[in-house]
Amino acid sequence: VTDREVAVIGLGLIGGSLAGALRRAGAHVLGYDLSCERAQTAFALGLVDGVSDHPADAVRAADMVLLAVPVRSIVELLPEIDAVTPPGSVILDTGSVKGPVVDAMGRLPGAARAVGGHPLAGDQRSGPEVADPDLFEGRPFVLCASSETSDEAMSVAENLVREVRGIPLRTTANEHDRVLARTSHLPQFLSTALALCVRPDDGKLSGPALRDMTRLAESDSTMWRDIAGANRDALVESMREFERQFGALVTAVETSDLTALVEAMESGSARAQSLAAGTDT
Amino acid sequence: VTDREVAVIGLGLIGGSLAGALRRAGAHVLGYDLSCERAQTAFALGLVDGVSDHPADAVRAADMVLLAVPVRSIVELLPEIDAVTPPGSVILDTGSVKGPVVDAMGRLPGAARAVGGHPLAGDQRSGPEVADPDLFEGRPFVLCASSETSDEAMSVAENLVREVRGIPLRTTANEHDRVLARTSHLPQFLSTALALCVRPDDGKLSGPALRDMTRLAESDSTMWRDIAGANRDALVESMREFERQFGALVTAVETSDLTALVEAMESGSARAQSLAAGTDT
Repeated sequence: VTDREVAVIGLGLIGGSLAGALRRAGAHVLGYDLSCERAQTAFALGLVDGVSDHPADAVRAADMVLLAVPVRSIVELLPEIDAVTPPGSVILDTGSVKGPVVDAMGRLPGAARAVGGHPLAGDQRSGPEVADPDLFEGRPFVLCASSETSDEAMSVAENLVREVRGIPLRTTANEHDRVLARTSHLPQFLSTALALCVRPDDGKLSGPALRDMTRLAESDSTMWRDIAGANRDALVESMREFERQFGALVTAVETSDLTALVEAMESGSARAQSLAAGTDT
Repeated sequence: VTDREVAVIGLGLIGGSLAGALRRAGAHVLGYDLSCERAQTAFALGLVDGVSDHPADAVRAADMVLLAVPVRSIVELLPEIDAVTPPGSVILDTGSVKGPVVDAMGRLPGAARAVGGHPLAGDQRSGPEVADPDLFEGRPFVLCASSETSDEAMSVAENLVREVRGIPLRTTANEHDRVLARTSHLPQFLSTALALCVRPDDGKLSGPALRDMTRLAESDSTMWRDIAGANRDALVESMREFERQFGALVTAVETSDLTALVEAMESGSARAQSLAAGTDT
């Protein structure tokens, strides 16, 4: 593990946490962030061994490059990163949508060494200040191959996931994006819409549930703009499905069809419980 | 405080927690629950000093009666409880909707000693097994007078709230119900609808956010059936407002109007942050 050089492009919550976890595991980590202030914070917090002023400088001697920037930036950066990363090194991203990223990876000259990734961890906060080397502990870390990804590159990516104590989970980009539309992207926009319904003075008459349900609304809007753009069709489909399910509840309440309401609640409860059982493992 | 007799009708999460907190504060607490098993559990857990087979037996010698059953049962029980509770004692409920309860209180022969209450605490779990005498610590506990409630009764209720370490918060039933429709009842049904959108196998591809957003869906359906019935108009209004806000986000995603999406997210984030600041105090 020692003597290995890792470059982390983007030192927010995910990039900073990966950097910290890999440094703890013995890697030498060079970081880059568009924001000089964030890069300096990551350095000051000991998440990276050093920072570069340009992505190309960070990756030039890297055995492994991690791209932890918003999805649109990943797609834009890939050709440049691929061009300056040494042969034999592996490129892994952490974007929340995998289709456009894996497509772009498949078109690179160095397509064989590029792997799509997405750690299912994090929260509404962002920035290196909240980075945590334990963030990935026991959490699934999705890995998606493009049609060109080599088995060797995938194997290196899986080892990296285990080094940061995550659980490698291989799936296709398409499957990832359709499921995440329901399990991650839909909840994000529900939280935003709920926050928009609440009046400024309502806080004093609210319990812990409202906070739980509006926490996601504080998430970084640039990151989510990119996710919505990159996973539009699957996201719209899941939003429409939600509108149907919620609309049926509105009708049940409005017509005082309390039997239908109880049935829906019992089904929802069973679904939530099985989700909890599945994700608490 | 000692030698005081409190009757708690309904020994679920809220009733059990109140019983435990008052017993800790030195009161002698008699409990009743429709379910003999729950009553026995509450007794076995030390939440009550004893249990009765009938509500009338529990309240006969009480200085204070707490009604911690679903809203419809509160309204149904009030006349019977009022008839057998000794003069000079105070009746306080904990229902999540206050309009119908406070109306029913105002029509009692003993209207002067009846106070509407709602502790803004609890979670999706129910039953005495999860009761916690610290549940109300630092949380608002809403108190609503009917047109007939005496200042003395309100004062006794406020002292009880302080004894269980809650923060008494006086408001009108109407104001309570309109605000709680947005801050509590709406989030409940959003959580149910979201749980219904998720497929059984989705759990393995989900992060902590989905769990946060579907936790409420596990709440007791009988309690929520009553809430939806008792606060129908305000709830439907808040659900319609949500449909408008969410619909605007769906349109923004579908038309790739990412500027509008970012604006909505920024507004939602500011709202969520001010809520968090207000409720974290």
